[in-house]
Amino acid sequence: MNQLNSAYGQLTQTFERVGHLGAASSTLFWDGRTKMPAGGAASRGKVMAALTSIVSETMADPALGELLDRAENEEAGNLGPWEAANLREMRRRWRHETAIPTELATELSERVALAQKAWEKARADNDFAAFAEPLEGLLGLQLKAAAIKGDALGMSPYDAMMDVHEPGMTTALIDNLFADLAAFLPPLMEQIMAKQAAGPAPEPLPGPFSNDVQMALSEKLAGMIGYDFEEGRIDLTAHPFANGVPGDVRITTRFFPDDPISGIMATMHETGHAMYEAGLPRNWSFLPVGSARGMGLHESQSLLFEMQAGRNAAFLPVLSQAIREAFGADSDAGAWSDANIGRLYRKVGPSLIRVEADEVTYPLHVILRYRLERAIMDGSLEIAGIPSAWNELMQEMLGITPPNDTQGCLQDIHWSMGLFGHFPSYTFGAVAAAQLFKAATEQDADILPGLARGDFAPLLGWTRKHVHSQASFAATSDEILTAATGGPLSAGAFKAHLQARYLGE
Amino acid sequence: MNQLNSAYGQLTQTFERVGHLGAASSTLFWDGRTKMPAGGAASRGKVMAALTSIVSETMADPALGELLDRAENEEAGNLGPWEAANLREMRRRWRHETAIPTELATELSERVALAQKAWEKARADNDFAAFAEPLEGLLGLQLKAAAIKGDALGMSPYDAMMDVHEPGMTTALIDNLFADLAAFLPPLMEQIMAKQAAGPAPEPLPGPFSNDVQMALSEKLAGMIGYDFEEGRIDLTAHPFANGVPGDVRITTRFFPDDPISGIMATMHETGHAMYEAGLPRNWSFLPVGSARGMGLHESQSLLFEMQAGRNAAFLPVLSQAIREAFGADSDAGAWSDANIGRLYRKVGPSLIRVEADEVTYPLHVILRYRLERAIMDGSLEIAGIPSAWNELMQEMLGITPPNDTQGCLQDIHWSMGLFGHFPSYTFGAVAAAQLFKAATEQDADILPGLARGDFAPLLGWTRKHVHSQASFAATSDEILTAATGGPLSAGAFKAHLQARYLGE
Repeated sequence: MNQLNSAYGQLTQTFERVGHLGAASSTLFWDGRTKMPAGGAASRGKVMAALTSIVSETMADPALGELLDRAENEEAGNLGPWEAANLREMRRRWRHETAIPTELATELSERVALAQKAWEKARADNDFAAFAEPLEGLLGLQLKAAAIKGDALGMSPYDAMMDVHEPGMTTALIDNLFADLAAFLPPLMEQIMAKQAAGPAPEPLPGPFSNDVQMALSEKLAGMIGYDFEEGRIDLTAHPFANGVPGDVRITTRFFPDDPISGIMATMHETGHAMYEAGLPRNWSFLPVGSARGMGLHESQSLLFEMQAGRNAAFLPVLSQAIREAFGADSDAGAWSDANIGRLYRKVGPSLIRVEADEVTYPLHVILRYRLERAIMDGSLEIAGIPSAWNELMQEMLGITPPNDTQGCLQDIHWSMGLFGHFPSYTFGAVAAAQLFKAATEQDADILPGLARGDFAPLLGWTRKHVHSQASFAATSDEILTAATGGPLSAGAFKAHLQARYLGE
Repeated sequence: MNQLNSAYGQLTQTFERVGHLGAASSTLFWDGRTKMPAGGAASRGKVMAALTSIVSETMADPALGELLDRAENEEAGNLGPWEAANLREMRRRWRHETAIPTELATELSERVALAQKAWEKARADNDFAAFAEPLEGLLGLQLKAAAIKGDALGMSPYDAMMDVHEPGMTTALIDNLFADLAAFLPPLMEQIMAKQAAGPAPEPLPGPFSNDVQMALSEKLAGMIGYDFEEGRIDLTAHPFANGVPGDVRITTRFFPDDPISGIMATMHETGHAMYEAGLPRNWSFLPVGSARGMGLHESQSLLFEMQAGRNAAFLPVLSQAIREAFGADSDAGAWSDANIGRLYRKVGPSLIRVEADEVTYPLHVILRYRLERAIMDGSLEIAGIPSAWNELMQEMLGITPPNDTQGCLQDIHWSMGLFGHFPSYTFGAVAAAQLFKAATEQDADILPGLARGDFAPLLGWTRKHVHSQASFAATSDEILTAATGGPLSAGAFKAHLQARYLGE
């Protein structure tokens, strides 16, 4: 059913245009982070705001709500399953977009602009106090918005904020998951550290490593994963991301001159994200049902390639060989040996900065933020108390205390953007990645041998079938996980994976 | 007057948004020509079409026409001079955008897509016949659209098509100008060729010249002109252009490995365009009155820097020195001498391809196209007759006949895009550039000494004041030229310039 005069047909046209505007924003975002000269920032801000406003106004048009009602009430019976899912996703997007009154949304975006500026300066100056007031102003409004949205969606305010990023990701689910991991990970970290301390220390690779050579290696690895350079490109940026539109999904990465591992991992991570976008069904391009399911599932795809496959024992010799070739290593011994490169890849220990954390400790950084967000939401933590609460939790979970707030509670951009409820997606993704990789390797016996010969096609084929091509046909990632792995999200596979990789092998 | 509730205030908001959408399209166009992977073309086409549709729909909204009426009838007396000009330009844009019925506009853009594909293939295959039918279909519609627009604007159809590119550029003006040049240029070309044949032949520079080294030289020259790399960048593309938004005006260029002169000229040309965009008044950014006046005046700015200043006797020694330094010349004699580089720059003679023509013969290529367009419009030339008419005019004006249509009537993309009335802007620009340069050097005695020391600031300052900062405050380029040079567009300065440069010096 897609006649132009049906309500569903008209909705499709409107949401397709919204998709086109989103694609414009996405390419302009990429440009802003990779190519735009500094002087373009003010104009770009206005252009992006105009695109956002057009989408908001389109969504707020009462005629759109009426079309949704009509399609649901009068046409649902005639829709095919993907069309029905598309209609459900249109309603979902409409609910999220229209729940917040326009005035509040405008005020929020103004507060975000102020808070981001204040955060940048506060982080540079190690001055949390200078950030506290703009953050308080922003969060006050954000909590108001969350309450309104929670009412509209029939959820708690925090669940409503998480639902934007990953539908069906609730505090009930996350509380359980995080309680489990918060108990499991710190002693595991201690055990792994003890084991690693008993073996040889990883030796740094002898650099420096030029950007050009690192880029050539990144392109080789992305190509190995299956990334198509006819439909994408890799560029440098400060904070890597991948985004794109059908036929044009771009990766960004960053390199350090003395540490090639970090850049390799960034590229493989973003390639995982890119493969998800590239694998979405083309016949539903630009429509809600054709979009990736959620941020958590998106993260599972990046981690499937970066962590599950990319640091897998089967793949490490291939990777080590690629590293030696790229950097013209004169031997495969010492620092350049498979064993040492493996140790560099798998070093575990507490660290101050979330984005630099290993896969064992990363969830603890997320749990810390989640706990603080919940405490701020329920009023038990005041803004001024964030630095000490942060430092206490760091000490409790990771056994270290940040020497300053710049390396502590000022490190992330998220809160200054009003992004609450976003951090849990990272760990949702890590747990889902382990669960998916376990199922994949059980279902296809060629996946691990594939990795050992540098062939990602079996793994990519599996996740394309079970995840990418499913887009947003299912209402939640849990449905996708259940269909693919036999059960909903659960920490079991992730815990077993960490034990096997770091203590068992 | 800019109260939000006034008609003028509301118009300003609407047209500012249209400006923002135009800025999005402009950056996406740049991306499409420089960075986008091939696979992105289909999505990009849809995104660009969505942006165009939103602008068309905004313009077609009857409420906008009513606001224009109200502002003109009730508020005009309260507007300051720039506001009044802004209102005039809003009406002008509205007239052009709304003159063509939506259905016809849609049909036209579909025909353009077909004709462009056919043209690409026909050019590659040297097969005009394969292009004739799609061109006929497109032009049939285009003539219909031109007639409708002519009625709406009170002009002849061809004038209406020229008016889009350069307001006030009429067939009356161009007929006179081109008759003058068509009589003047062919004998001048013969004289110059005879003089050049009597002197030493230009000796090619010893290459090859890598893109990197050519780019460094391009950046140096653009910087010398005054281009600000904090507010722009230079990239490679197949067909150079410059475009941008306030604070972010980008140049594209292209290099040949065996001929560095061509790339230098492309860069200086596009830098001239970029300086115009960068010099528009920031307090009118994104609004109609803040835009460049017309394509003809735009071309005058590119040629002011590329041709008038860039090939000026005062500047050639500076340029020659920059070329020698960039390419590591081992002497300043022989091919690398100022005299030889000057001869390379100023070689005059008939050539088949418009974009490769020198400044003496270029207008003849334009006049040829103008005559054919007029003949097609008045029905005296049929599509099938284009190749022979083209070849006859080439022989008549330039004394050469294309060996095939690929190097003849299939060389330009314009007609396949439905662009009629566009070519005259190039010569309008060349003539205006000579007139502006003459006035500038007469009014500021430091401009020529500036060029001799590689300092474009005096020339740039003059044209910023008299052209760039004027934006679209005046209704026509002729008004700008009159204020800046004392008289409207006239061929005198251009003719005198060519005689002095090629026969007099």
